[in-house]
Amino acid sequence: MIPVYAGVDLGGTTVKIGLVDKQGNILVENKVPSKSHEGAEQILKNIVHVIQELLKQNSDYILEGVGAGMPGQIDVQKGIILEGVNLFAWRNIPAVAILSHLLNVPVKLDNDANVAALAEYAFGAGQGKDFMLMVTLGTGVGSGFILDGKLYHGSTDIAGEFGHMKIFIDGEPCTCGDYGCLEAYIGTKGLQKQVQKKIKEGCQTSLSQISPNQLMPKDISIAAEAGDEIAKEILQKTGEYLGFALANVNIVLNLSRVVVGGGVANAGECILKPARETLRRRSLSASAETIDVVPASLGEKAGLIGAASLVILKEN
Amino acid sequence: MIPVYAGVDLGGTTVKIGLVDKQGNILVENKVPSKSHEGAEQILKNIVHVIQELLKQNSDYILEGVGAGMPGQIDVQKGIILEGVNLFAWRNIPAVAILSHLLNVPVKLDNDANVAALAEYAFGAGQGKDFMLMVTLGTGVGSGFILDGKLYHGSTDIAGEFGHMKIFIDGEPCTCGDYGCLEAYIGTKGLQKQVQKKIKEGCQTSLSQISPNQLMPKDISIAAEAGDEIAKEILQKTGEYLGFALANVNIVLNLSRVVVGGGVANAGECILKPARETLRRRSLSASAETIDVVPASLGEKAGLIGAASLVILKEN
Repeated sequence: MIPVYAGVDLGGTTVKIGLVDKQGNILVENKVPSKSHEGAEQILKNIVHVIQELLKQNSDYILEGVGAGMPGQIDVQKGIILEGVNLFAWRNIPAVAILSHLLNVPVKLDNDANVAALAEYAFGAGQGKDFMLMVTLGTGVGSGFILDGKLYHGSTDIAGEFGHMKIFIDGEPCTCGDYGCLEAYIGTKGLQKQVQKKIKEGCQTSLSQISPNQLMPKDISIAAEAGDEIAKEILQKTGEYLGFALANVNIVLNLSRVVVGGGVANAGECILKPARETLRRRSLSASAETIDVVPASLGEKAGLIGAASLVILKEN
Repeated sequence: MIPVYAGVDLGGTTVKIGLVDKQGNILVENKVPSKSHEGAEQILKNIVHVIQELLKQNSDYILEGVGAGMPGQIDVQKGIILEGVNLFAWRNIPAVAILSHLLNVPVKLDNDANVAALAEYAFGAGQGKDFMLMVTLGTGVGSGFILDGKLYHGSTDIAGEFGHMKIFIDGEPCTCGDYGCLEAYIGTKGLQKQVQKKIKEGCQTSLSQISPNQLMPKDISIAAEAGDEIAKEILQKTGEYLGFALANVNIVLNLSRVVVGGGVANAGECILKPARETLRRRSLSASAETIDVVPASLGEKAGLIGAASLVILKEN
């Protein structure tokens, strides 16, 4: 018999379900549409059905636990979905109780940013780094912290909002209602604004051919690779802003690794190099020596592997 | 027999030593001059002598452990003083090994900012608040973090440098070599600069009667109480700067309490009110609801009580 751990990655449109071994390998996987109109209980039943089918097809697997990650606010201790994001109808759903009742194994639940961080810590670019920050650069700036080898949740399970650290005491308005947040500069909308500003200033850039609201981070990366100076400058600035916010965190938390993932991070060293340099220059010297900034290594798989890791690593 | 815990507060000029009960009460205390020229081993022997004398005078006390706090960089796990501050000759001193050999009880060592935080958490204004930041406003801005009910040390025991969080991406130079740090604005030198700036701008203030380098935070508090508008404005601004840095920390750490102590904090609500308001306004709404900013309650005793708490609270 091979002990396996089910990982469940609840997205706005699809739920991915996989069986993962103790070494973090996805053995088999499947997916179902989220169908959020059906209500949480039905979707949880669908998930259980998929897990049971995957187990039936592999009779030498024995299920040891289920971990699930999803966007939204989670009461981690009680295992309750307080407020789902995208999965609009989900409020106060005791998901852990429902799943553990149906499957009779330990179940853990956490938000998707924490789950991605745990995946990189357990099996990816953060292995062995007990004080780790995972930053996911996408439409927004997501993050999860591993402190002392464990996911950090804070006093009411809403810690880790790195993207809303303010890099300017007065600054650009952010979707959170405040202003000056990192996300307002290096999230997708922030990047669009930076490009628009450059175009208004009369700078020549191939990015002016793309409609401002359609412009994606990937377009900036492609333009930079093709030699567009404005695109390069914006990625450099993005890295510097990221590095400044990382320095402010590192001064307080004395981290050992930062792992950067997500779409914007595909620009690679164009962002990571200035981020690393700024982080080191602006951290206190002793805390600058022991930290590095590296790209994530698990990509899209982090959702499944991280969810399973919630039960593979017992202490989380 | 009454179980007691020795607290040792190593300062630059005096070493305070006290026997503390499990409830955090100082039962007896004494002090010896630091005499740092005598070398660490001799001073540690002096400390042991004082502890033994205090025990002899109280034959119903039984020593359960020794905790010591001091300024400087400490390897907490190994119990080594890596580099003392003020106690200039102290480098790589295995203080825990020496003291536990001489007294044959468990010994713990930590830096003074952490020790003060632990005192307020265990027996002061942070009781029951498992996610707490203690800020000490003095010549510099000291701090210690309690996360998940334990002192937080980070990956190389140099976490918690809250005073060096940057409130401006470009800003005033700081003693740490970087710029824009909170301490460069609300530490004693920062406050002196703020006053000088106001005087240069032609503002009328009673503070102009004090020589710039002699001006202490207390003078600003006294002037503010006497109705000096510039002094009030500077304390207000100090609170706002503090609150902004607290918001940036709270966004990431989702704290439940901030305890403010030290000389500058004697200005009380003149600083704490704007700090509290700014913290709440600039934190994400959910993380603003569960945090408060309160004055420290143990004052000067925090050094002794906190040191003893290192061994009273076993998990630290």
